[in-house]
Amino acid sequence: MAVTCLLELTPGNSFEGFCLVKEVKQEKTKKGDPYLNVTVAKKHKMVACKLWNNGFGGRTVEELLTVFSNGSMLYLTGVASEYNGQVQMTINEFRLAENGEVDVREYIESAPESVESMEAEIRSYIDEIKIPILHQITSELFEDHKKLFMHHVAAVKMHHNFRGGLAYHTLSLLRIAKNICDQYGEAVNRSKMYAALTLHDMGKIIEMTKDFTAPEYTLFGQFLGHIQIVNQMIDRKLVGIRHERSVSIEEVTVVYELMNIISSHHGPLSNGWGSTAEPITLEAHLCHMIDNIDAKINMISKATADMQEGEIQKVWGLGKLYKPREIE
Amino acid sequence: MAVTCLLELTPGNSFEGFCLVKEVKQEKTKKGDPYLNVTVAKKHKMVACKLWNNGFGGRTVEELLTVFSNGSMLYLTGVASEYNGQVQMTINEFRLAENGEVDVREYIESAPESVESMEAEIRSYIDEIKIPILHQITSELFEDHKKLFMHHVAAVKMHHNFRGGLAYHTLSLLRIAKNICDQYGEAVNRSKMYAALTLHDMGKIIEMTKDFTAPEYTLFGQFLGHIQIVNQMIDRKLVGIRHERSVSIEEVTVVYELMNIISSHHGPLSNGWGSTAEPITLEAHLCHMIDNIDAKINMISKATADMQEGEIQKVWGLGKLYKPREIE
Amino acid sequence: MAVTCLLELTPGNSFEGFCLVKEVKQEKTKKGDPYLNVTVAKKHKMVACKLWNNGFGGRTVEELLTVFSNGSMLYLTGVASEYNGQVQMTINEFRLAENGEVDVREYIESAPESVESMEAEIRSYIDEIKIPILHQITSELFEDHKKLFMHHVAAVKMHHNFRGGLAYHTLSLLRIAKNICDQYGEAVNRSKMYAALTLHDMGKIIEMTKDFTAPEYTLFGQFLGHIQIVNQMIDRKLVGIRHERSVSIEEVTVVYELMNIISSHHGPLSNGWGSTAEPITLEAHLCHMIDNIDAKINMISKATADMQEGEIQKVWGLGKLYKPREIE
Amino acid sequence: MAVTCLLELTPGNSFEGFCLVKEVKQEKTKKGDPYLNVTVAKKHKMVACKLWNNGFGGRTVEELLTVFSNGSMLYLTGVASEYNGQVQMTINEFRLAENGEVDVREYIESAPESVESMEAEIRSYIDEIKIPILHQITSELFEDHKKLFMHHVAAVKMHHNFRGGLAYHTLSLLRIAKNICDQYGEAVNRSKMYAALTLHDMGKIIEMTKDFTAPEYTLFGQFLGHIQIVNQMIDRKLVGIRHERSVSIEEVTVVYELMNIISSHHGPLSNGWGSTAEPITLEAHLCHMIDNIDAKINMISKATADMQEGEIQKVWGLGKLYKPREIE
Amino acid sequence: MAVTCLLELTPGNSFEGFCLVKEVKQEKTKKGDPYLNVTVAKKHKMVACKLWNNGFGGRTVEELLTVFSNGSMLYLTGVASEYNGQVQMTINEFRLAENGEVDVREYIESAPESVESMEAEIRSYIDEIKIPILHQITSELFEDHKKLFMHHVAAVKMHHNFRGGLAYHTLSLLRIAKNICDQYGEAVNRSKMYAALTLHDMGKIIEMTKDFTAPEYTLFGQFLGHIQIVNQMIDRKLVGIRHERSVSIEEVTVVYELMNIISSHHGPLSNGWGSTAEPITLEAHLCHMIDNIDAKINMISKATADMQEGEIQKVWGLGKLYKPREIE
Amino acid sequence: MAVTCLLELTPGNSFEGFCLVKEVKQEKTKKGDPYLNVTVAKKHKMVACKLWNNGFGGRTVEELLTVFSNGSMLYLTGVASEYNGQVQMTINEFRLAENGEVDVREYIESAPESVESMEAEIRSYIDEIKIPILHQITSELFEDHKKLFMHHVAAVKMHHNFRGGLAYHTLSLLRIAKNICDQYGEAVNRSKMYAALTLHDMGKIIEMTKDFTAPEYTLFGQFLGHIQIVNQMIDRKLVGIRHERSVSIEEVTVVYELMNIISSHHGPLSNGWGSTAEPITLEAHLCHMIDNIDAKINMISKATADMQEGEIQKVWGLGKLYKPREIE
Repeated sequence: MAVTCLLELTPGNSFEGFCLVKEVKQEKTKKGDPYLNVTVAKKHKMVACKLWNNGFGGRTVEELLTVFSNGSMLYLTGVASEYNGQVQMTINEFRLAENGEVDVREYIESAPESVESMEAEIRSYIDEIKIPILHQITSELFEDHKKLFMHHVAAVKMHHNFRGGLAYHTLSLLRIAKNICDQYGEAVNRSKMYAALTLHDMGKIIEMTKDFTAPEYTLFGQFLGHIQIVNQMIDRKLVGIRHERSVSIEEVTVVYELMNIISSHHGPLSNGWGSTAEPITLEAHLCHMIDNIDAKINMISKATADMQEGEIQKVWGLGKLYKPREIE
Repeated sequence: MAVTCLLELTPGNSFEGFCLVKEVKQEKTKKGDPYLNVTVAKKHKMVACKLWNNGFGGRTVEELLTVFSNGSMLYLTGVASEYNGQVQMTINEFRLAENGEVDVREYIESAPESVESMEAEIRSYIDEIKIPILHQITSELFEDHKKLFMHHVAAVKMHHNFRGGLAYHTLSLLRIAKNICDQYGEAVNRSKMYAALTLHDMGKIIEMTKDFTAPEYTLFGQFLGHIQIVNQMIDRKLVGIRHERSVSIEEVTVVYELMNIISSHHGPLSNGWGSTAEPITLEAHLCHMIDNIDAKINMISKATADMQEGEIQKVWGLGKLYKPREIE
Repeated sequence: MAVTCLLELTPGNSFEGFCLVKEVKQEKTKKGDPYLNVTVAKKHKMVACKLWNNGFGGRTVEELLTVFSNGSMLYLTGVASEYNGQVQMTINEFRLAENGEVDVREYIESAPESVESMEAEIRSYIDEIKIPILHQITSELFEDHKKLFMHHVAAVKMHHNFRGGLAYHTLSLLRIAKNICDQYGEAVNRSKMYAALTLHDMGKIIEMTKDFTAPEYTLFGQFLGHIQIVNQMIDRKLVGIRHERSVSIEEVTVVYELMNIISSHHGPLSNGWGSTAEPITLEAHLCHMIDNIDAKINMISKATADMQEGEIQKVWGLGKLYKPREIE
Repeated sequence: MAVTCLLELTPGNSFEGFCLVKEVKQEKTKKGDPYLNVTVAKKHKMVACKLWNNGFGGRTVEELLTVFSNGSMLYLTGVASEYNGQVQMTINEFRLAENGEVDVREYIESAPESVESMEAEIRSYIDEIKIPILHQITSELFEDHKKLFMHHVAAVKMHHNFRGGLAYHTLSLLRIAKNICDQYGEAVNRSKMYAALTLHDMGKIIEMTKDFTAPEYTLFGQFLGHIQIVNQMIDRKLVGIRHERSVSIEEVTVVYELMNIISSHHGPLSNGWGSTAEPITLEAHLCHMIDNIDAKINMISKATADMQEGEIQKVWGLGKLYKPREIE
Repeated sequence: MAVTCLLELTPGNSFEGFCLVKEVKQEKTKKGDPYLNVTVAKKHKMVACKLWNNGFGGRTVEELLTVFSNGSMLYLTGVASEYNGQVQMTINEFRLAENGEVDVREYIESAPESVESMEAEIRSYIDEIKIPILHQITSELFEDHKKLFMHHVAAVKMHHNFRGGLAYHTLSLLRIAKNICDQYGEAVNRSKMYAALTLHDMGKIIEMTKDFTAPEYTLFGQFLGHIQIVNQMIDRKLVGIRHERSVSIEEVTVVYELMNIISSHHGPLSNGWGSTAEPITLEAHLCHMIDNIDAKINMISKATADMQEGEIQKVWGLGKLYKPREIE
Repeated sequence: MAVTCLLELTPGNSFEGFCLVKEVKQEKTKKGDPYLNVTVAKKHKMVACKLWNNGFGGRTVEELLTVFSNGSMLYLTGVASEYNGQVQMTINEFRLAENGEVDVREYIESAPESVESMEAEIRSYIDEIKIPILHQITSELFEDHKKLFMHHVAAVKMHHNFRGGLAYHTLSLLRIAKNICDQYGEAVNRSKMYAALTLHDMGKIIEMTKDFTAPEYTLFGQFLGHIQIVNQMIDRKLVGIRHERSVSIEEVTVVYELMNIISSHHGPLSNGWGSTAEPITLEAHLCHMIDNIDAKINMISKATADMQEGEIQKVWGLGKLYKPREIE
């Protein structure tokens, strides 16, 4: 009997069910016959499929591409085999899902916590920012952009590229920061840490498209990068506040210090990773290091998720990784 | 008879005349006696001086420092000797110059062209910017800041650290760019080049103090760097224009492209020299290369000015330099 | 109706006409059937073609390779399709062009100016070299080698790899240099610049084969590189002059200074790009920077020629490149 | 009246009291007269002193060096002046403190928590190691070496070079690790983290002398480094356990995995900072990042402790640092 | 008539004979039909083969993989063609060789000298170690592990990856070292050189599997690397000796010095090639340089073995290589 | 009684005897009194001296500098003290040695073998070059330049900076090469190795002054470097031979191959150490590695010569070095 949930598909099974299209590529065999390489998904599970031209049902490639496009929900039948250790499916039949036939939210990978609880928790961190101008700017920017911010992915490819990834990544950093502030006491300025971490990647809502299936860099993102974009947002807020009330030189200074922390959160300029200024405060150094921890934990967890225990594999950007066997 | 103009002072002479104080340091002999190391100058000529405590005339170091401070004009008598191939002077007597006694402009190094002619020529380049929104932003920023801009130094230490250095450097780049635009025709966009070059270092009026004798990085300069500062100026202008009229997406795009050229005028991020985005257009690559040419010509001319013909010396940041003998 | 000029070929057309063979590779399908990958061209336009074995007409691969060889002129019929955004043609019929049937010069990419005018202009720069021994050496080497020099490509793959590319590149540098010499006055020595730039890449006539279709590094080129080769040419000239007249130490020195400028025109040794000595004069630094400007303008123009306006692509050696939309 | 506690000494005061000798250097004036540069301290406060030869009291330098030696307690009288912004003292009279006259513990800088409480807390972390062989090895090594371990410095110069610094640094990492384990759940293996962090720097008890005043690298430390030294300790324990009972291959594997985490806690080999193997598990990457956080917080806190608010200074290994003004 | 010895196989021949399987990969054609890529060998000669599914003889891929597995001896018939300048064979028929039918030693590449003579010569070097504790440790480790050591490969891929490669590489280094010791006299300590070179790669018997056909890194190898593994072996010997007799501090020191030489034989830490300590003696620097010489000679000899005279090829890790024509 | 041989001078002695002046520097005390820092030597022993102005005997500094100049032989009396672990002498009286009073050869450091024997041995290697054109060029260049070559230093500062150092270094490389050729048989071409090694540093006779006391880079040396200089010598020989007889293409090729080996003997271009072409033969790689071995042995031997056994010191370019205690 055919498997109906993509999460359960293994080699040798046939499949009948819904799935979400993540990526479509036209290819040709060496003989010149067209076929499609299609990646379909349910949540985190991705399956590579082939639609050979004997399965086109007489349609042209152009017609097929109106069905097989990023983000469309399909009903497929096919047969799964195994290739290089991965499930692969040959598509036999296909149609677009009809409206209301299936709930798309069950097919999209999302942050493991609810948008509502994440939003509340981030707001609680913002509430602890004791420097008034930092509190005002952070709070206003968060409220202005929270709709996009709470659902946006945090990356094109690497870590946190899922719905709500940006908010979840931001929240994870705030939690680590809280513990470090608790542990090191006055050595670390809690208000600056919370303001900087809440805002540090907010420029990504403009740097990348909000598409959850296949986000891309925008033109503006490539002109300026997310760091300069968020610094622009902060500057516009500062200009706005100055229109309403007088702002002391100490206040301007602390806002520029905030922009420095954000400017340098990719580390020193010499590493060439895209900081736009050198880190010159403890908080600036800390933001970079905390960002690194969350990114690495997520990349490594993701990379080892499908590995066998005891296996070693080479992973791009991380070198070799070993997945230990359980021993406890 | 004593030399009265610092430009003519050589070892063995005595000196009586005016000079400008560039730098003052308190020192102590090994025995603990205080003395002052003072650098005085007329135009480009700098002379290292010593004021031993037998020349203090009973004054305390604190009293002396009110006389010997950066930028003050002094009347000195002293005797010049030679040390490690350089003139060095022991100060015997000193007093502050009185108001009107001497024209300070004769003692400050300035750009080799007049402020008026440089300002007119830069404005003529701005007039050739054919993309209206780039013309408006560049023109307004130039007019807003021209007072500071036309007299500012361009660097703390290296090339162009003289009065008007920023304007002179900017103008030199515009002239090279004009010739390259003439030579390569449509391959290079003249409007973008002129806008970007006029603005590329304008952030330095905030990054560095306007002091012509001993400029320093400001706190804001160290928080953001001159690239982010000028991008902020451009963004505020864009916001202002939007308040007055509707701005098309093509116009916004070209303004962001301008910010990208400026963001990347220190070269690719991987060199770690402080670009805040990658260069992604020909104009961005060109700005970096033209900036480099003018900087190198000025640094090498300066470094070899005092060398003997036929001599080789090691110069910081440039390696060994050879000053050729005349042969033509 | 079939397209007859390769410059006009687009996907979906059939083609009947002449073209020049640039590259031929034997391949096999997974089933083991042989076929040919052939690149044909007219001027700058290159089209990738496939000749399947059902189009071999009974000939063996060896027989086919006497027809499909680098530089041969063919008459082809075929059908163009589109693959990964590029035109691709399946060859149906083919024959060698007969003598006189077609003018090969219409199929080869050449410098955009005539050989005669370029030669005259380079000679006019040589005439401005005021240091007699530099003038003599540069002039004699140019006259000795002008036949090869005027038609040679300047590179195996990158910029200026077309007929006359070496002369055109050399001339472009001389023009930039002229403007910089005009602008910076005595700071730059015009005679040394013109001598060095005329000769800087002349070693390439030995480093690379003179083939305009597919130039390759020669064995001697790989043993020594074009810098050491041209320095050898200069040295042989110097030895020759010494056989005819006495040469002063100042003259020898300036010839070695010339060799230093050429030796270092790939920049400092530390970049590992093949300079054979450190740059130690302003002219040496300038040669490197001017060479860079011309190379980058040509590489970027070439890379963006086929891009859509508004598009961003990753280009080897240049990173991402953006082709702006017209706005003026 | 003279100041009697070194912690209160400021320029202009005279001093009479006890202090600890940290460093002694013989010097000569240019005239050839010998004198001593002596650094004395109480807790974290260090004062540079000079003993001129008119203060030698007829003793030879050799005799003086028996009094002024690292770690000796002296009673001094002298006068403090100010030099380059720092207190400096000229010593007038001196004698060795007599037994029982002063409590040396009041003069040595120590970790800010008691040895007893730190030892108990580290032990509580060890108790949470749930993999028996890791628990046994970690626990035994800690008990074997706790005497040295609890009092040892953690560095020759940089962060944590004070009595108990090694234990305090170890404990700080364990605390950060605890919070990260709590936050990320099963993604991180708590047992391996606690075992690795407890042991990661234990090799320093052999790599550096236990001297609290001026620790130095030992010969063995320079032959192998602290990573190989602690791996040797772990291996000897493993050999010992094998003599007592049979050890499964899974157990050996997890011990080698522990050695890998420790081997790579300085980051990837390519950074050249002394890791002895590549990190291949999440725990290995995490150890490196957590170690970095604690080290940076301590280095920056130390470096900014004596800076003025609002000041920027260049600090070796950290670049420029800014000490913010209070604003909250 | 068919070729029966793989060493003589050239394109166009058919083949009937024995060969050793070195590598097997399952593949699929674009149509989805399975086939096998098999590499077979005799001595140093490797031939890439294809077994299409029309040659499967009705067997499944799983069944085929029991025949085609690393290290199995097969009797094959097939036809050789030429592809990209290399021999390639299509397999028609195949069977496993029967016991005794063929001598596997004639199919495995081995060191060019006999195991017996190499073992005797290495032992003669060990006999010249005049420092007793180094002699004892080296001699015992050699005798303990000589069975594995004498037959082990020295590398997974690069130089010396053949049976006995580890012993042959070790012996080559000892021979170079002997000559350098003879030439430089007392400057170099012969005993330390011989001990360090004999042991330097002994950890590879644990770092890599002993398989001569397709060696792989072991898990332990990836946890610690061969340097830490052999240092562990040395340390265990030292512990053992201490159980039997008292060992002087001078003896312990020289053993640690030996471990330092081995720890640093991949060069300085900054190159990131896996040394586990900095070289701090002449012998440590020499070991690294001698190791390099033997490795390079072998890699280059291997890389040029199949090149034509006069040819230039790019070789991974070595750049371009030229194979000279004979001229003598 | 005073010591009369500088080799025996230790702190506390007075001295009366001859010595050679290696370096002279004018200095001033902080009070402005002039004095001289003079380095004197006998063989490898160097002693730093001070001549205070109370020892000037009424002469001016200019008069003193005619006596104290590089390379002059003096008769001195003085008193030795100890400063920072090194002997230091205050000069009381001095005079120039008279002609014939002392044999300067006893004061200059020279190669440890006689010029005659080294010359004969180098010639015997040249005799083994079996490729006629390489033999002719090497032999002629050696005979042309042997006078300078046999006595020249090999370096300005580092290894082999003594009389005959160039010949001794060359000979050492030839000896190592002989053994490697013997060991590796046909893999290495003996003729090319001997020709390349004999000539590899011959350009230094022009790159550096022949002064044995304080050699310096010449102007020509800095324009081209010793590699391009010797390649020029070889090319001039090749041109000369062509005037006398016809030279085959194979012969030209092998001469260029020789120039490639020399061009690349500082290693790959990417290290930035001054190779002028990439190494593309085994012999080219070997020359670099053998050169490295001899250089390192000499630098380390020199650096550790004055160290105590058991001591560790940091040495420029080598990192830390340990001088082992004797144990055998």
